[in-house]
Amino acid sequence: MNDSISPRTGRAPDALRPVTITRGYTVHAEGSVLIEFGQTKVLCTASVEERVPPHKRGTGEGWVTAEYGMLPRATHTRGDREAARGKQSGRTQEIQRLIGRSLRAVFDLRRLGERTIHLDCDVIQADGGTRTAAITGAFVAARDAVNWLLQRGAIAESPIVHPVAAISVGIVRGVPLLDLDYAEDSACDTDMNVVMTGAGHYVEVQGTAEGVAFSRAEMDQLLRLAEKGIAELIELQRNSLSK
Amino acid sequence: MNDSISPRTGRAPDALRPVTITRGYTVHAEGSVLIEFGQTKVLCTASVEERVPPHKRGTGEGWVTAEYGMLPRATHTRGDREAARGKQSGRTQEIQRLIGRSLRAVFDLRRLGERTIHLDCDVIQADGGTRTAAITGAFVAARDAVNWLLQRGAIAESPIVHPVAAISVGIVRGVPLLDLDYAEDSACDTDMNVVMTGAGHYVEVQGTAEGVAFSRAEMDQLLRLAEKGIAELIELQRNSLSK
Amino acid sequence: MNDSISPRTGRAPDALRPVTITRGYTVHAEGSVLIEFGQTKVLCTASVEERVPPHKRGTGEGWVTAEYGMLPRATHTRGDREAARGKQSGRTQEIQRLIGRSLRAVFDLRRLGERTIHLDCDVIQADGGTRTAAITGAFVAARDAVNWLLQRGAIAESPIVHPVAAISVGIVRGVPLLDLDYAEDSACDTDMNVVMTGAGHYVEVQGTAEGVAFSRAEMDQLLRLAEKGIAELIELQRNSLSK
Amino acid sequence: MNDSISPRTGRAPDALRPVTITRGYTVHAEGSVLIEFGQTKVLCTASVEERVPPHKRGTGEGWVTAEYGMLPRATHTRGDREAARGKQSGRTQEIQRLIGRSLRAVFDLRRLGERTIHLDCDVIQADGGTRTAAITGAFVAARDAVNWLLQRGAIAESPIVHPVAAISVGIVRGVPLLDLDYAEDSACDTDMNVVMTGAGHYVEVQGTAEGVAFSRAEMDQLLRLAEKGIAELIELQRNSLSK
Amino acid sequence: MNDSISPRTGRAPDALRPVTITRGYTVHAEGSVLIEFGQTKVLCTASVEERVPPHKRGTGEGWVTAEYGMLPRATHTRGDREAARGKQSGRTQEIQRLIGRSLRAVFDLRRLGERTIHLDCDVIQADGGTRTAAITGAFVAARDAVNWLLQRGAIAESPIVHPVAAISVGIVRGVPLLDLDYAEDSACDTDMNVVMTGAGHYVEVQGTAEGVAFSRAEMDQLLRLAEKGIAELIELQRNSLSK
Amino acid sequence: MNDSISPRTGRAPDALRPVTITRGYTVHAEGSVLIEFGQTKVLCTASVEERVPPHKRGTGEGWVTAEYGMLPRATHTRGDREAARGKQSGRTQEIQRLIGRSLRAVFDLRRLGERTIHLDCDVIQADGGTRTAAITGAFVAARDAVNWLLQRGAIAESPIVHPVAAISVGIVRGVPLLDLDYAEDSACDTDMNVVMTGAGHYVEVQGTAEGVAFSRAEMDQLLRLAEKGIAELIELQRNSLSK
Repeated sequence: MNDSISPRTGRAPDALRPVTITRGYTVHAEGSVLIEFGQTKVLCTASVEERVPPHKRGTGEGWVTAEYGMLPRATHTRGDREAARGKQSGRTQEIQRLIGRSLRAVFDLRRLGERTIHLDCDVIQADGGTRTAAITGAFVAARDAVNWLLQRGAIAESPIVHPVAAISVGIVRGVPLLDLDYAEDSACDTDMNVVMTGAGHYVEVQGTAEGVAFSRAEMDQLLRLAEKGIAELIELQRNSLSK
Repeated sequence: MNDSISPRTGRAPDALRPVTITRGYTVHAEGSVLIEFGQTKVLCTASVEERVPPHKRGTGEGWVTAEYGMLPRATHTRGDREAARGKQSGRTQEIQRLIGRSLRAVFDLRRLGERTIHLDCDVIQADGGTRTAAITGAFVAARDAVNWLLQRGAIAESPIVHPVAAISVGIVRGVPLLDLDYAEDSACDTDMNVVMTGAGHYVEVQGTAEGVAFSRAEMDQLLRLAEKGIAELIELQRNSLSK
Repeated sequence: MNDSISPRTGRAPDALRPVTITRGYTVHAEGSVLIEFGQTKVLCTASVEERVPPHKRGTGEGWVTAEYGMLPRATHTRGDREAARGKQSGRTQEIQRLIGRSLRAVFDLRRLGERTIHLDCDVIQADGGTRTAAITGAFVAARDAVNWLLQRGAIAESPIVHPVAAISVGIVRGVPLLDLDYAEDSACDTDMNVVMTGAGHYVEVQGTAEGVAFSRAEMDQLLRLAEKGIAELIELQRNSLSK
Repeated sequence: MNDSISPRTGRAPDALRPVTITRGYTVHAEGSVLIEFGQTKVLCTASVEERVPPHKRGTGEGWVTAEYGMLPRATHTRGDREAARGKQSGRTQEIQRLIGRSLRAVFDLRRLGERTIHLDCDVIQADGGTRTAAITGAFVAARDAVNWLLQRGAIAESPIVHPVAAISVGIVRGVPLLDLDYAEDSACDTDMNVVMTGAGHYVEVQGTAEGVAFSRAEMDQLLRLAEKGIAELIELQRNSLSK
Repeated sequence: MNDSISPRTGRAPDALRPVTITRGYTVHAEGSVLIEFGQTKVLCTASVEERVPPHKRGTGEGWVTAEYGMLPRATHTRGDREAARGKQSGRTQEIQRLIGRSLRAVFDLRRLGERTIHLDCDVIQADGGTRTAAITGAFVAARDAVNWLLQRGAIAESPIVHPVAAISVGIVRGVPLLDLDYAEDSACDTDMNVVMTGAGHYVEVQGTAEGVAFSRAEMDQLLRLAEKGIAELIELQRNSLSK
Repeated sequence: MNDSISPRTGRAPDALRPVTITRGYTVHAEGSVLIEFGQTKVLCTASVEERVPPHKRGTGEGWVTAEYGMLPRATHTRGDREAARGKQSGRTQEIQRLIGRSLRAVFDLRRLGERTIHLDCDVIQADGGTRTAAITGAFVAARDAVNWLLQRGAIAESPIVHPVAAISVGIVRGVPLLDLDYAEDSACDTDMNVVMTGAGHYVEVQGTAEGVAFSRAEMDQLLRLAEKGIAELIELQRNSLSK
């Protein structure tokens, strides 16, 4: 195989898929965003609850937490419904913990006051990158929920200190690629999810060798790609929120 | 209170809400339909599996089954995620059993062969009537899945013997109403869900007195309203499928 | 087969099976009734608890709720014990929700005060109609529990505003039948459970086409049969309670 | 307090409560026995299944197993329904394991062939001694199931090698008592359940100091009492089975 | 086989295996003991919690409770991890209830005050007798936790009124043996676990006929053996605690 | 604060804690290793099973999987026992998935044949770094299990293609530290777990900003520290295995 030929057609190795951010996608939630990374579609809602979990009671601080789910036929073959099976998979729990940590990293919980923002990220259609789309969309939904609190006078200043977004990068047949779709993700040797703030700092870096272990040089390439993609996503978030 | 004044504004007591049926809403499922009854939005997918549950193995017959779920913030206040809580509520199970029975009632399972059609009905946004929208949308998704099987030559003739649709009716402050939204449903004394075939026969009738018990005369009024609504829904299904 | 011949021998199509109501069947519960519809035997106990569930706390109103179970060998072949399997089936939940709603429909919960009546309906032996026997027997047990509260002066007037009873009806080989036993229930095309008050009004109507969908004329026949049966059951309840 | 005064009125310290054994209590099971030890009533059914659990498959041997349950209002105050709570308590599991071991101790599993006898012991009303009544009644139900197998020619000779029965004994205010009722059981310092065969040998001895530890002399007294009680129970089983 | 030859080599029928008690095995717990009965190794920790379960709140009394677990590969063949399977087996629950009762039998819960001592007994390596080693080791850990409370002045006098220890005895090929290892336990006809206080009184006696039922004479032999073993164990506990 | 003062006393910022690897810690498992990173002690066993999970059946390939647990009092304050609570936490699942992936990364599963190696990592005592100790110890246990298979002739050549080890690094008060203990881990701003092969390549990199997001320069510092620590761990594994 000729490694000089890109494994990706119609999109540059360092290009994001078309990204669409639709605010106000549903009517009840304080923030409701449909985010699309190509064929991947995730509905992210932000719900404000005037209570905090036990470990925050009486501290004057708020909490931000996330749950993640996938509709049974969001994928090529139907998966079990987790509610019917009676428990969430390890993968689901891992992803929802990641989303929660990523969003908390850009919140000043004292400014939020003793309330919780629940971020529900439900995958309507999956084609790779559902967790990174979820983090990127959840930030926009969280911003809308914060604006709702500000408009009602519930809080005096925004508890959000930075924007945050996430993207996947990976090496497929030797070529570092930005924003893997499902086919690329299945074929890649190394898969990395990167979460960064608008200030260009890292919140999470999760790199996994699916096949062969990766070198330091490869990691550096991947981190540069991710940095480029996240800067673009943060610009897209800003545009969407300015409407 | 003056009972002669309708409790509903901007819609006749015997009128459906605007109904929208969007086929091919997602790309992976053999049938994928977003159905909207006013503000209620349910995604219905039909997935074909080349296996049957144990009680059908070796019979030469197929199976049709349904699962129902609601995104946590589909409603005014956020509900628990059933997957996180570790079990489906009694209400969820009741609804998914109803959807399954309603669809099986119009299938000749022998013609389906030893395969299963899974109908997943997930409520994206709720404003009353989610179970009736789910049945009405699931029928369209099931039809698309059957067409997919026919086109591939997996079956020789359609196992669907009739169309099927469902609607809610109820009495609010003495006035019989068709297709209750959430506010009407919360206020009604009697609530009835009716499932009928395209031939005008009943598949399910579930009437419940929420407040005061209802008379035979009231039931007759409600059944007439339901019959009218279902005839209109079946016409809407037909139009959607003919595109 | 000759459809003009009734599918039932030794009992008229519009006749109930012999009904026996034994009050005080066990000693601990405030109400304890063994109800028999032919071979079907259900033990219904009413337990008074001086607490209400969270959604009723501080409202001054009480609550009435039901649970349903079946002993593993109540049926022809042994079924799984739900406690051992770790969850109640959808059918069990559906039935206990129906019993609860049916009884609440005849209670004025304000007169009950902030306490709960738990109705436990356990099937000792099953031969069709367990849910209708359960509702009919639970009413008698609830009445005994109310009398116990009245005698102790815990409440000043009865919160029960009507009697309530339930019966099944169905069409077997074209013949409408009252009070189906297991064999009839297995063979029927349409199965309907009807819950009515002593005032002749409907509390619940649940009709299901098991095989072919049913016409409006058939439903009317079934409702008439049910009305007759329920009037007889309410008379039997009254006789039992007057002893 | 005067220890020479028995803590029990109307029954000698070494007397059983009135014991009633009703065979054929329900119609579906191969063996169905209602056993009463005074106010304690347990329904014991024996169900034959033509399968064995995995660890017995292909061995030519059968299996005998037991499950135990208590109706929620069998007791003075209503207990949780284990099926609703989603798991069996440690106490329930301990008792059903005891019943299973006790019955297996008198079976020659090779003569049973590759089939299972399920013993379901459900407490209808509780007043102490439910596990000993369950073992004693389950033996009679098992015998009826074995007779059913013999009559159908499924087995050539009975796999039951001895009768088995069980009784509780305890020390209440210094007085050794046979067959404790609930009030005695709550007051006793030492509680012992003894399971013996018709040959006068021990199958299980489970003694527990509830309050003060017990001496060897006390244990000897209790074992003598138990031996007397079990001999009487085995005679009552024999009489019941000879009818 | 010649029954006059002992089935045990290298150890007298009435001899314990080498017993080792290591206090302070881990650093965090208020009491932490590794106990070894030959190849059986159980880590027993005692944790003090300044709360009691609901049934003890406001009584001024404390509580002592135990949990038991086995590492998946403590045994010859790997067993399921109970946390992964989602529930504790009946055997596990039976054992942890036994440990809890045995320890509570030697506590004066009023002197403990409203706090709980949790005893966690985790089997690192199993070779028979894990429950008796657990009880014997848990006593030492509990004593250390009590000493910790005394030294901090949290309690004025020790709530422990007696030492307690446990041992298994059994009959293997006609020979009564003390302290069965796994091979002996698998081969034995009768297996008895005995829990006694330092005063020579019984707390628990649990005898089970695995194969043939046992006679009164055999029970007497076994009880004498157990008494001898427990006296030795209590001496070993005392020596360990005096260091 | 003076950043030039190390937050760590008695250990250089780039020094591992004392590491001890004890092979053959328990007797039943094919590999059994107690690994200690300072006060952190994890028992890692490797169990060979002659079966593979469904997704590997018939492929000729084997499987390597891991489970992780923590004894309830391994930590400063007692945690819930996951088996008693009925489910594994998200953290537990995340860790055991990480261990499994890390070990599979250095296995050629075809050479293993259709068998499974189960790695059970149970934390006896926790003081930070339990997951990295688990990976490092599990490798040694896996190697012992592989040697056991080689010695029995079950496989012809070792399926292990590289050694693998893991270490944590973090930034505490501005100072990059290797191998964080619990106090350091609680105080750190950035925490990173790194898994590398003996060839110096990455298998997993998981960096999390606990407080403030971290810069690329900080990440580079941490990666260098980790590389140093892992090289030392792999040398320690080699020494241990050569004994």
